[in-house]
Order: sequence, then structure tokens, then C-alpha cells
Amino acid sequence: MTHKLPYTLSTIGEFGLISRIAAGVSGHESIITGIGDDAAVTAISAGMQLLTSTDMLLEDVHFRRSWHLPYCLGRKSLAVSISDIAAMGGIPRWALLSLAIPPKLPLEFVDDFMRGFLAMASEYQVFLIGGDTCSSRSGFTVSVTIMGEQKPGIIVRRSGAVPDDDIWVTGTVGDAALGLKILEDADIASLTGSKQPKQSPSNGIVDDSPFLINRLLDPTPRVSAALALAESAAITAMIDVSDGILADYGHIAEQSGVGGCVQLDDLPLSASFRRHTAHLPVIPYHMALSGGEDYELCFTAHRSSREKIVDCVKKCGIAATRIGIVTSSPELKVVNRDGSRYTAQTEGFNHFI
Amino acid sequence: MTHKLPYTLSTIGEFGLISRIAAGVSGHESIITGIGDDAAVTAISAGMQLLTSTDMLLEDVHFRRSWHLPYCLGRKSLAVSISDIAAMGGIPRWALLSLAIPPKLPLEFVDDFMRGFLAMASEYQVFLIGGDTCSSRSGFTVSVTIMGEQKPGIIVRRSGAVPDDDIWVTGTVGDAALGLKILEDADIASLTGSKQPKQSPSNGIVDDSPFLINRLLDPTPRVSAALALAESAAITAMIDVSDGILADYGHIAEQSGVGGCVQLDDLPLSASFRRHTAHLPVIPYHMALSGGEDYELCFTAHRSSREKIVDCVKKCGIAATRIGIVTSSPELKVVNRDGSRYTAQTEGFNHFI
Repeated sequence: MTHKLPYTLSTIGEFGLISRIAAGVSGHESIITGIGDDAAVTAISAGMQLLTSTDMLLEDVHFRRSWHLPYCLGRKSLAVSISDIAAMGGIPRWALLSLAIPPKLPLEFVDDFMRGFLAMASEYQVFLIGGDTCSSRSGFTVSVTIMGEQKPGIIVRRSGAVPDDDIWVTGTVGDAALGLKILEDADIASLTGSKQPKQSPSNGIVDDSPFLINRLLDPTPRVSAALALAESAAITAMIDVSDGILADYGHIAEQSGVGGCVQLDDLPLSASFRRHTAHLPVIPYHMALSGGEDYELCFTAHRSSREKIVDCVKKCGIAATRIGIVTSSPELKVVNRDGSRYTAQTEGFNHFI
Repeated sequence: MTHKLPYTLSTIGEFGLISRIAAGVSGHESIITGIGDDAAVTAISAGMQLLTSTDMLLEDVHFRRSWHLPYCLGRKSLAVSISDIAAMGGIPRWALLSLAIPPKLPLEFVDDFMRGFLAMASEYQVFLIGGDTCSSRSGFTVSVTIMGEQKPGIIVRRSGAVPDDDIWVTGTVGDAALGLKILEDADIASLTGSKQPKQSPSNGIVDDSPFLINRLLDPTPRVSAALALAESAAITAMIDVSDGILADYGHIAEQSGVGGCVQLDDLPLSASFRRHTAHLPVIPYHMALSGGEDYELCFTAHRSSREKIVDCVKKCGIAATRIGIVTSSPELKVVNRDGSRYTAQTEGFNHFI
């Protein structure tokens, strides 16, 4: 017997959708009661504290359906939450997912979204244990709550940075911001009918757009590196880079009661970022400083831990770069190689402007 | 020095809003790290399991700003989640709150919403430990995640009902549905210019509208009764009545692999419900059966527990009423006093229709 796929959510209803989602979900010994009761029941491991974080993603605020394939959107919706648990040195465990869905949205969109969400969950051993679904009068809305756990002595906060610590960042910064710029320019080009101003992949020149766009649309949470760093006890404070390295280090500085001096030349830029911006008169460092959504880790550590840190992240297949020094003065500054002050846009993303 | 109150959220920005919210929040010994880091850190009590639930409330889907004062909306946003923890026999502990806010929404709206949310939190000893705020391109959107805890042996699920158990419900049902009808009728009356068809409070006749509307807009989660019932070990299954007693008992029946027979005449109706509908040719039982949002408790128990149950809930200042019997046949039916089948709308609220 074959079933015709119901086309929209109004056809299958809320409980039909929940059953459809529940069917794809895996169990785990820590889950006593998963999807389908008033609340999920889980068991925290002995000696562990609970870590919780929540993120809301709104259509046309955090994502555009024209840019984001639903599969990638599903992955990213969970990835940004996993990244929050990682930034505390925590082990991500369980997720709750709420979806507000336009009634006429094709069911395939939700199916693809869920496939992406559950693929990300599976990669990081996170289990979906509950959620909520409802109809949306406007766009597709996603709310994810993630729970993790960790021993009290391993958890890393934003508040532990001390003067003269090194400021570090994993991977590279600015890629996601540049990816966003590429998508925006392509949209403008298609609206104005002008040719998209991108480098041609012909003549042996690499087209870096896919890499850069992918960094925005399908970020990788740095869980293993964060865990290794937290367990090494080498770091004093940590945050994930969601609002731009300057704004996010600013949170560490504020909560630690310190300042910081970032060396512009030391910001790790990807080869793709450098190639794609090589035709510009100056390197667009403002993207690396203030562009959000790279989901790298920014952390601080005493200078005696340098070797340990490099080894630690190397084992996880990524790099970490020292980009500056924690200062006792509460000021946050970015300097050029000659020590002169770099002045550019230094604000992170303000969701209300 | 006096500050001019910023009028909208675009004035104070995301971090201004978070600071504003955090300033009103209380701490508790179970909270190791609250608002302001990548994730909150809390300590589960020894021997307890974690209970988690999440609810999303959307403007013009779950509430209307023209009906709902922001203070009450704040209360209700948390109350419906607290009710989920209660329905498991759990102790509500911590909440995460995400808000998507139209940039031009007056700040007073959010302030009043938060006052209501935190008042409800304080009444039930729930602590706000984190959340997310962002700009909304459409309406005000609320997502609440609640966490609670309970000993494994006390937690009550939907799946424990057995044939011949009594079906019980606390308080009264149908009030919230009738309150909704009153608000809808008043809206229609104001649109058509006709006089609102309500009972006049003059001539000694009580105006029941405020009570009924309040049951919809400011529900009371039955935490103490739920806890007392769970701890008494007298009950076999429990759920909170959010989608209507028939649909919600239906979830118990489905997950317990049983059916049920509900006696129409035994449904507990409030004096307000009876008075307000006294002019109708028949009692609108469909509201009591299928109207949602009463947030009472529906539960099942062996007949030997009757006295224990009545005592248990009485101590919590409410009543519980036996409304039917769990059956072994999977059918769910409602019968009149003479045993004949009552036929009316039997579906709960489908959020996608």
C-alpha cells in the first residue's frame, strides 16, 4: 500500500507532525521518558551539573528561506546551541525543539529541516527529547533549548580572564560575515539585473564563495576542542564567537572586569577570505572583528599554557591563534603592527537595530 | 540624575534589554551561574531526575494583544509550562525565556510582561536562569523552557492507566473555553456595532464574565495538588488539561493502551459556567469536553484510592471529581445519564487547522 505524501501541515495536524518527528528520533540510556508526555525525564550523570541554553531563530531575521536549504537550517538551528554548551566546556546531551510553521509550508521543508537537525544531533550525540509545534501566522520560527552536563571543576565561564592572559581564537574569523556579504551582493545583483560581482572560477582561480557561504549556513560547533581545553585546565575564560570576536571577547572582558588589546595582524583569516578579498585596497578586517556567526571559540589563558593549548586543539584537527593580551585597564582596543590604534566599526550584531 | 525611559527596544538594544531583565531576577542556591554566560549552570538535587518541557506562544495564534494585558500574558507564559511539570508530579525549578519583539513595541509592554512572568515565577519558586531575545518582523513571540526535578518513584506519566481505574479531573472544566467565547462575541459585537450580548450585572444578577475570562487569561497551574497526588502514590496516570479534557484524557488512553467512558453529567462545571449559560436551551457541554486551556489535572486511579484522593486535593484548596472509568476497549466515549451515547464535537484544538 502506498501513501500519498500530505502536502502541508494543515493536512496532518499537530499530532501527526509530532508522530512524524518522533519516528526519526533515537533513544539513549539517559532518557527515561522522551517525546510524548507532559515533560521529558532524563538522568544527569553522577557528580555533574546541568548546563542549559536556548536560542530562537526567526525567518528574515536570522535566516532567509531563499538562502538556506531546510536541511542546513535544521543543522544550524542545533549547531548554534551545541556551540553554547561547548563554550562552557560542557558535554551536549539533550535538546528540545519548538517550531512555528506557516500552515501552507510544504511538508518536505519540515522533513528536510528535521533530517538536518537530527543529522547534527547524531554527529554530536545529542538527543531530541521534546518540544512544541504550532501554526505561524508569519514565518518559520525555530526555538531550540539544549541541555548539557559537566563536572563543576571543568566548566569554564566568561568571568575568569586575568590581566596578561593571552587572548586566543580557534579556526578563522570573518568567513561567515564574508559569506553573508556574498549572498547579499548576489541578491542585489539579481534584483538590479547586474552581473554578480564574483571572482570567476575559470583560469585556475579558485571560487571561494561556496566555502565562505557554507561557513555562514552550516557552521561547525567546536565541541571536541572546547572539551579538550576545558579538561586541560589551561584556560581561564571562554565564549563562542556568535556576535563577532570583538563583541564576544568584550563579554569576557566585561564579566572578568578586565580589558584587552587585540593585534589586528594576528587575526586568523582563512585562505578563502584572503583570496576573495585580495582585489580590495585593504583587507576588510572589520568583518573579522565584528562579523558574527563563525562559532569559533574565543578563550583566555596564562602564557605558560601556550604549548599545551596548541597541542590540545591540534589533536582536535583545528588550530588556535593568539590574537592579543588581556589588560587590566577596562578598555578594549585593536592595534596595528606599529602599535597605532585601529579604528573601525567595533560593534557586534545588535538584533534590534 | 533622571533617565528618560527609552521608548522602544531599538533604543536600548539586545544587551540593554537583557540587563534590564536580569536586574529583576532572583537567585537561588541551586543556580551556580544564571543569566549572562553561554549557558546557565544549575545543580540537580541528589537522587532526582530532570524534567523538561517547552512551549511557544505566538501573537494572534495563542494570544491577542487586544485581549491580554502584558502582565497577565507574562504570568500565563510561565503558568502553562509550570503546569506541564506539575502534570508529571514534578517540582518546577528553573526557566529559560526567549522573546521575539517587534522593534517598535513600547518598552512598557515588555516591562509589564516581565513583571507578570517573574510574579508567577516567584509564586511557584521558579527561577529564570537564561534565555534569548531578538527582533521580530511580525508579532510578539514567547518561548519558555521549564526544568523541574523529582525522584524517579514519584514521577507520574500518561502511560499508567489500567482498565477500571476512575478518571478524575481537578477544579472545573470549560471555563476558559467560555471565557474565549465571551471575548470573541465582544469582538464581533464591537465590529458590527451591535450591543455586546452579555448578562447585565444589574438587578442582583452576577456578571460571571470576569471570572470566566480570567480563567482563560490567567490560569493557575495545579502544582501543590499534582505534587500531593504524585507523592500519595494513589494515581496511575496524569496530564494537564490544555487541549480539552477529552483530547487530553485521549492522550492518557492512547499511551496506556486503554479506552474510557466519560459521564457527561459528572463533568464539573463552575457556578459561573452554569449561570452564564443558563439561558441556553442546553448546557454547552462541548465546551467542557473539548475547550482547552483550563490547566486542570486529569488523572486516573484505582477505585480503592477515592478517599485518599479527595483528601489529598482538598488540602490543596481545590476539588477533584470522578468523571468516568478507564475501559479495556480502546474506544473513548461520552455517555448521558441514561447510558446513551453523547455525540458532539470531540476533537481537541488542532493548532494547524
